[in-house]
Amino acid sequence: MTKLWQKGYSVNEKVERFEAAQNSALDVRLIRHDVWGSLAHAAMLKQIHLLDETEYQELHSALCSILALEATGEFTVLPSDEDVHTSIEGFLVAATGTTGKKIHMARSRNDQVLLDLRLYGKEQLHAISSELFDLCSALLTFAHEHEELPMPGYTHMQRAMLSSLGLWAAGFAEALLDDEQLLSAAYGLNDQSPLGSAAGYGVPVPIDRQFVSDKLGFARVQNNVIYVQNSRGKIEAAIVQALAQIMLDLSKLAQDTLLFTTAEYGFFQIPQELCTGSSIMPQKRNLDIMELVRARTQTLLALQQQIMGITSGLPSGYNMDYQETKRPFMEALDIAHDCLEICTLVISSLQVKRERLIAACTFELFATDRAYELVKSANMPFRDTYRIVGAEVTALLDRHEDLPVESEAQLIERLKARSHLGGAGNLGLEQSHQRLADAQTIWKQRTTTFITTIQQLIGTENIPSEE
Amino acid sequence: MTKLWQKGYSVNEKVERFEAAQNSALDVRLIRHDVWGSLAHAAMLKQIHLLDETEYQELHSALCSILALEATGEFTVLPSDEDVHTSIEGFLVAATGTTGKKIHMARSRNDQVLLDLRLYGKEQLHAISSELFDLCSALLTFAHEHEELPMPGYTHMQRAMLSSLGLWAAGFAEALLDDEQLLSAAYGLNDQSPLGSAAGYGVPVPIDRQFVSDKLGFARVQNNVIYVQNSRGKIEAAIVQALAQIMLDLSKLAQDTLLFTTAEYGFFQIPQELCTGSSIMPQKRNLDIMELVRARTQTLLALQQQIMGITSGLPSGYNMDYQETKRPFMEALDIAHDCLEICTLVISSLQVKRERLIAACTFELFATDRAYELVKSANMPFRDTYRIVGAEVTALLDRHEDLPVESEAQLIERLKARSHLGGAGNLGLEQSHQRLADAQTIWKQRTTTFITTIQQLIGTENIPSEE
Amino acid sequence: MTKLWQKGYSVNEKVERFEAAQNSALDVRLIRHDVWGSLAHAAMLKQIHLLDETEYQELHSALCSILALEATGEFTVLPSDEDVHTSIEGFLVAATGTTGKKIHMARSRNDQVLLDLRLYGKEQLHAISSELFDLCSALLTFAHEHEELPMPGYTHMQRAMLSSLGLWAAGFAEALLDDEQLLSAAYGLNDQSPLGSAAGYGVPVPIDRQFVSDKLGFARVQNNVIYVQNSRGKIEAAIVQALAQIMLDLSKLAQDTLLFTTAEYGFFQIPQELCTGSSIMPQKRNLDIMELVRARTQTLLALQQQIMGITSGLPSGYNMDYQETKRPFMEALDIAHDCLEICTLVISSLQVKRERLIAACTFELFATDRAYELVKSANMPFRDTYRIVGAEVTALLDRHEDLPVESEAQLIERLKARSHLGGAGNLGLEQSHQRLADAQTIWKQRTTTFITTIQQLIGTENIPSEE
Amino acid sequence: MTKLWQKGYSVNEKVERFEAAQNSALDVRLIRHDVWGSLAHAAMLKQIHLLDETEYQELHSALCSILALEATGEFTVLPSDEDVHTSIEGFLVAATGTTGKKIHMARSRNDQVLLDLRLYGKEQLHAISSELFDLCSALLTFAHEHEELPMPGYTHMQRAMLSSLGLWAAGFAEALLDDEQLLSAAYGLNDQSPLGSAAGYGVPVPIDRQFVSDKLGFARVQNNVIYVQNSRGKIEAAIVQALAQIMLDLSKLAQDTLLFTTAEYGFFQIPQELCTGSSIMPQKRNLDIMELVRARTQTLLALQQQIMGITSGLPSGYNMDYQETKRPFMEALDIAHDCLEICTLVISSLQVKRERLIAACTFELFATDRAYELVKSANMPFRDTYRIVGAEVTALLDRHEDLPVESEAQLIERLKARSHLGGAGNLGLEQSHQRLADAQTIWKQRTTTFITTIQQLIGTENIPSEE
Repeated sequence: MTKLWQKGYSVNEKVERFEAAQNSALDVRLIRHDVWGSLAHAAMLKQIHLLDETEYQELHSALCSILALEATGEFTVLPSDEDVHTSIEGFLVAATGTTGKKIHMARSRNDQVLLDLRLYGKEQLHAISSELFDLCSALLTFAHEHEELPMPGYTHMQRAMLSSLGLWAAGFAEALLDDEQLLSAAYGLNDQSPLGSAAGYGVPVPIDRQFVSDKLGFARVQNNVIYVQNSRGKIEAAIVQALAQIMLDLSKLAQDTLLFTTAEYGFFQIPQELCTGSSIMPQKRNLDIMELVRARTQTLLALQQQIMGITSGLPSGYNMDYQETKRPFMEALDIAHDCLEICTLVISSLQVKRERLIAACTFELFATDRAYELVKSANMPFRDTYRIVGAEVTALLDRHEDLPVESEAQLIERLKARSHLGGAGNLGLEQSHQRLADAQTIWKQRTTTFITTIQQLIGTENIPSEE
Repeated sequence: MTKLWQKGYSVNEKVERFEAAQNSALDVRLIRHDVWGSLAHAAMLKQIHLLDETEYQELHSALCSILALEATGEFTVLPSDEDVHTSIEGFLVAATGTTGKKIHMARSRNDQVLLDLRLYGKEQLHAISSELFDLCSALLTFAHEHEELPMPGYTHMQRAMLSSLGLWAAGFAEALLDDEQLLSAAYGLNDQSPLGSAAGYGVPVPIDRQFVSDKLGFARVQNNVIYVQNSRGKIEAAIVQALAQIMLDLSKLAQDTLLFTTAEYGFFQIPQELCTGSSIMPQKRNLDIMELVRARTQTLLALQQQIMGITSGLPSGYNMDYQETKRPFMEALDIAHDCLEICTLVISSLQVKRERLIAACTFELFATDRAYELVKSANMPFRDTYRIVGAEVTALLDRHEDLPVESEAQLIERLKARSHLGGAGNLGLEQSHQRLADAQTIWKQRTTTFITTIQQLIGTENIPSEE
Repeated sequence: MTKLWQKGYSVNEKVERFEAAQNSALDVRLIRHDVWGSLAHAAMLKQIHLLDETEYQELHSALCSILALEATGEFTVLPSDEDVHTSIEGFLVAATGTTGKKIHMARSRNDQVLLDLRLYGKEQLHAISSELFDLCSALLTFAHEHEELPMPGYTHMQRAMLSSLGLWAAGFAEALLDDEQLLSAAYGLNDQSPLGSAAGYGVPVPIDRQFVSDKLGFARVQNNVIYVQNSRGKIEAAIVQALAQIMLDLSKLAQDTLLFTTAEYGFFQIPQELCTGSSIMPQKRNLDIMELVRARTQTLLALQQQIMGITSGLPSGYNMDYQETKRPFMEALDIAHDCLEICTLVISSLQVKRERLIAACTFELFATDRAYELVKSANMPFRDTYRIVGAEVTALLDRHEDLPVESEAQLIERLKARSHLGGAGNLGLEQSHQRLADAQTIWKQRTTTFITTIQQLIGTENIPSEE
Repeated sequence: MTKLWQKGYSVNEKVERFEAAQNSALDVRLIRHDVWGSLAHAAMLKQIHLLDETEYQELHSALCSILALEATGEFTVLPSDEDVHTSIEGFLVAATGTTGKKIHMARSRNDQVLLDLRLYGKEQLHAISSELFDLCSALLTFAHEHEELPMPGYTHMQRAMLSSLGLWAAGFAEALLDDEQLLSAAYGLNDQSPLGSAAGYGVPVPIDRQFVSDKLGFARVQNNVIYVQNSRGKIEAAIVQALAQIMLDLSKLAQDTLLFTTAEYGFFQIPQELCTGSSIMPQKRNLDIMELVRARTQTLLALQQQIMGITSGLPSGYNMDYQETKRPFMEALDIAHDCLEICTLVISSLQVKRERLIAACTFELFATDRAYELVKSANMPFRDTYRIVGAEVTALLDRHEDLPVESEAQLIERLKARSHLGGAGNLGLEQSHQRLADAQTIWKQRTTTFITTIQQLIGTENIPSEE
């Protein structure tokens, strides 16, 4: 493919491979977004009389045929194309001749790629929010089922105080609901139209940036044209930062699940269709997927670092370095999406070993309760009862005698006594359900509006059936 | 100081130093926040009849005397104290005897430190937002002054198209206004009261978490008690992530400023009171501060990584690892604060060398304009005029002849022709001013409400004059 | 493909995709290394009489046929295979029946993958060292050519003292020679045979680990079997750390080159076949490749962080998390390899603009020389002459008069006066050439020995012609 | 203090604080190294007749008096000094008048700080290597004591195959011995004298760089003067990279220890003087120190990232950004030092609960052994016996019946059967002891030589007694 900037000399082959090999492969994901952008841009060029109606229709029709080809995997981006923008312009020129050569009027690949990534990010966040809500919902269901199932609460990985399985699960749901707030903030930044910034300095042509922005369903035009370019990598980073928060929660969920399924804890069993085996040890059932969730959290943190590291210290204006942020951005979205899905699968499939949980609620968990009881019964200040109970318990533990055990009923009684907000006896699941429902409504609205806008842009008759 | 958990044996000295040396030094910053939390906690204990009025007054008075001591630097936290919580409880016991031993009823250091960090974070974000608005304002003023001053726009560090100094500066202002949205989202997460989660599993005591939350001016109670503990590090990370975005913008501003003050660019001069010299080269005037802004951006990215790396993979419940997130959190806030302040100083002091900027607007910047003109005049499609102009310009540049130069008036004319939204001829400064004003109103409201709430908690007669 | 651990149930499809999709694609790179390991393992099984001669020959022949298939791209690893080990065992069973089912005796995929990565790493480091020496050599040649070409030396991005282009280039060569020492240390760690550690706890079978190690040309057996597993990720990280050092040097080279090719500096011109253009600006010739080198340095730092982050905090023994270190390891090797190659291309093609370099050697560069001259001529201490010259120079600069200029001959005279070790007048290029030659000898020896050993293992008649 | 570069104007106060507040505090650690460097530099100036004997003696005496003041904490570096170099030059001028003003002849703070950090790094690495050997030795002793103590070996955190406590501990010793190789390589890079590079471009004065290098005991002069400056941060990073490898091993040791001391595993008990307690839960004995080792590993990875991130993308020559690498360098050394010491303390104090370890060696650990036995007894290929045993074991586990248990004697028999290199029955402790002894010899030599050289430089009569 002739490069858009070709002016009569050939680029060194090593240089071409070094620059474009990876980028062209990634750009296959951006075909439809680039087409959508070109549809809106063409409509605007018609609006300001730089295309006439016939030319516009030619372009519209050729662009829609790309959508059809993409839906069946027939449209590709070759390394010699450099990028999706070139391969699409090349297709348009081939299909429409002179008209195709007009499409790039008043824009640059710099603002095109920004647009593609914004639209791609939007779509991905719609899907990720949905996965997040699924996991949240699975956790709340799980919490509800096990609201009265006692388990040890740990600090410093040591048994600390009485907790419940419901409390454990509901905590993750709340974490994810907080994450949604960060995700929404990043979504808001992403929801700005970059088109018209061109190479970063605008164009001496009276383009209508608001028109294009509306056509594509953006909340607003991103105003300053240098800032538009300077925000490359920045907004991707903002999204990845929100994803990193989600992943940190999943990492904790994974680590807990891995611990709780060891022979030593034995709180959970995992159905074997979620496990893998060993090539040497016939007995093994490994929860590899949660190890991978744990590892991919670190990967996502590295991707966050990568994007922000690349952009750090760059001068204003487009720099080629930005191209290197495309892959970590896409990968981070993939990771978050897949890991949310896997965690929902795990939470929905956990087999709880009730008797092991109860048996683990040993004597020392109640030392604090005992100290509080003494405060009341002996009318002593807490710090004194703490010391008395501390001495007692230590002595008992050191004697290694059989220690007193509480019955399941007693344990449940104790759970109920944690009746303050957010305690094991007062989980507040309805409040979480309400937050979940509210967030779902907002995101469904976002998704629906976006789909409708894009359908209008394409024209319903042109929507590939696969979409 | 006797440790709160001391039960009759001594901890190894190396262990003590390993754990507490750094932490106690950091905790000096948290004295007043810990006092505020204890004031609210004591009020709640009185409310649920675990303290009587006299006891409450004793504690209130002793706590306020700590505020007075802190204001004059007389209250310290020693390594042997482990942390600020211990040193304050120790003070209260020394001051009030048995009453002091009651203060820790129904709470843990785990929820105390969470509270202290939330309050500390709040205060710091109030200050940082104010610094951010100052810089934003300085940039808008600068942009207004230089709205019609032409300069080259760069891509790939090469001269690309015509730009203006106003466009350059206004872009940074918009970036910061976007950052404010991320900062607000992080602020929202931080604005939840953790008190009552105790060690992470609540307490079997009917505490009133909402009461405490209201006393301290939080927007809401952070509900699930395990989640409260699990959010240690997480919310700090959310704040640092927002700061990282700010720093990336300052890093770009720093890099631009450093380039533009080289002998080679020569666009800016810096007053010598902002510069430092060399010990060997008598002539040097270095803009060290902007190099440090650039470097501290990398530091802040590392702090972001540090906090998130530490929390990654930890199981649920409090882990000592969290203590290691305190320092990077505080340092990140310091860095953002100082760098915003320094950048405001630099922007307010920049001496613009107008003639150098104009002289740098050389011939090749207008190649795109020429291609657009040909589109119109020759009625050719853009891709064809692009190739024609490309060949022309390359030939001219290679002949190394004197190239045509545009007058200042012509340049300004061209700037004005970029009249679309966000172009050099249509900066939209009023819109940025409006966004700035709106954001300032919100943050001033937050700050004022917080100060008022804390003053009511302390009682106006007890506010140290230095505060 | 039946999984090696399949015992009569099917794994969930999402789980399979989550685990194996990426891994199987990466494993295509490890086919021949896995075959080599199996050849050595089979030879050892024969040696300890767990395979008879016929079985061994069957396996040897089947394994060599895989090498032939791989050479023509006909051997693949499918996601349903999970990994290369499974796909190869599957092939062997299909080709040899019962004999193939014996190959996995006394080993595990855990030690197999370790082996594959060690061999892969070795091969890659052989190639990378060679690229590094090429760049080093190009830099020394360049330094020699421009040994007497004056240029400004910069500190704080400001003109500081007189330097030379030769000094600039030779410095990078020395940096790379130091990097070689780190690379050699990492190579040494990698040069240990992991085979026989099995799943990390050895096998109750009298295997001969030294025999296998010798067959594969390792310097030694990595002894402790738990440590072998614990070193997964660790040795990869050691290699990537050395690569990170190389990349930091290339990053600096890239940044310098980018600055020196701006219109403002104008010290270098790059032939246009190494440049790319813009889709909108007809005049642009961008040195994208050096921007990518700069960006990929950040990518490599993130990969270093990724590998080390993933392994951090993992308990002893194999964890699935390690699988996630395979990709960053391979990518880091690719990046270092490609960037070294590209930098050699750039250095070999740089067009030096002599007159621009000389013209940039302005007055202020000699302030320190002047202060030293005063020390001698006026017999004053340096700190006093520093202050005198400082005042003089500042006054002159502020008067903006025409400042004295030195002739090229004078500049060269000054360069020669920097006659101490490593100064512009005494570059010590012979010493660098010697270090380069010594290092090359060592690495060539390593490479040759390795190739010979592997050829012996395969049998020369079985070496695919493409290798 | 007057700044070295002061030329008659005052620097802005905010600027001064922004730049120097942290740096001056860190520089207190570099006082003696800076003095050593000045002693060598003065000797060289005398050698080339830029100082006469009297002047040299004046400076020598004044410098030695600084060493005496430092030994008693009486020499400080104030923020207004900017750095240790200024505060020392100031002292010399105050003490010797004109002579003191001559000390900075032919050097710059740029090469001074490089020197100080090289000497500081050397001293620190001497100490760290010694701590590393202590831990290694403690681990080998522990391994020897528990060579025949069976325990489960884990993969994927699940019980996998039989292992031993000796095998577990010895693995960490081997890891540290490998780390020593990386540490030695970094030490080698650090062992180059930077003095004479001045501001990065040498000096037009016939200084004798080899003389200074020998006086300070460096292995060689770091030649190219630009490279010397470009290696700021680079060599620090090389050292921190080696420390990161050590920390990753300690992190694994910490995680294992934390798991093995939970109620659920119960393999180890920790003496209470190494534990800390809870402010709320009277029974708690937390192994905080190992949680901190785990967390500080992440901190060290972030410091590695910080140093390398800061240097990435900087142009050649000194940049102020480098100052920001000083603190992470020092902190990384502190962390590695302290964590090695703490781990030695923990390993030396571990109380092993033999019966818990043996009881954990449950039935499923022997599935692989069983499959190997079947290979022999039934003459079947491994993959077939694997499937047979897999089905058997799964069935048994699912029936939840009492499973067969092996006696301690049987377990030890099995351990001994892992008789190949590095297996539980053949730990190879002597080999590790030998590697340890060899490494210790080298490092002791390094340490002794360094101390002797420095003592000669100072003159034995001038060595402060505290040193």
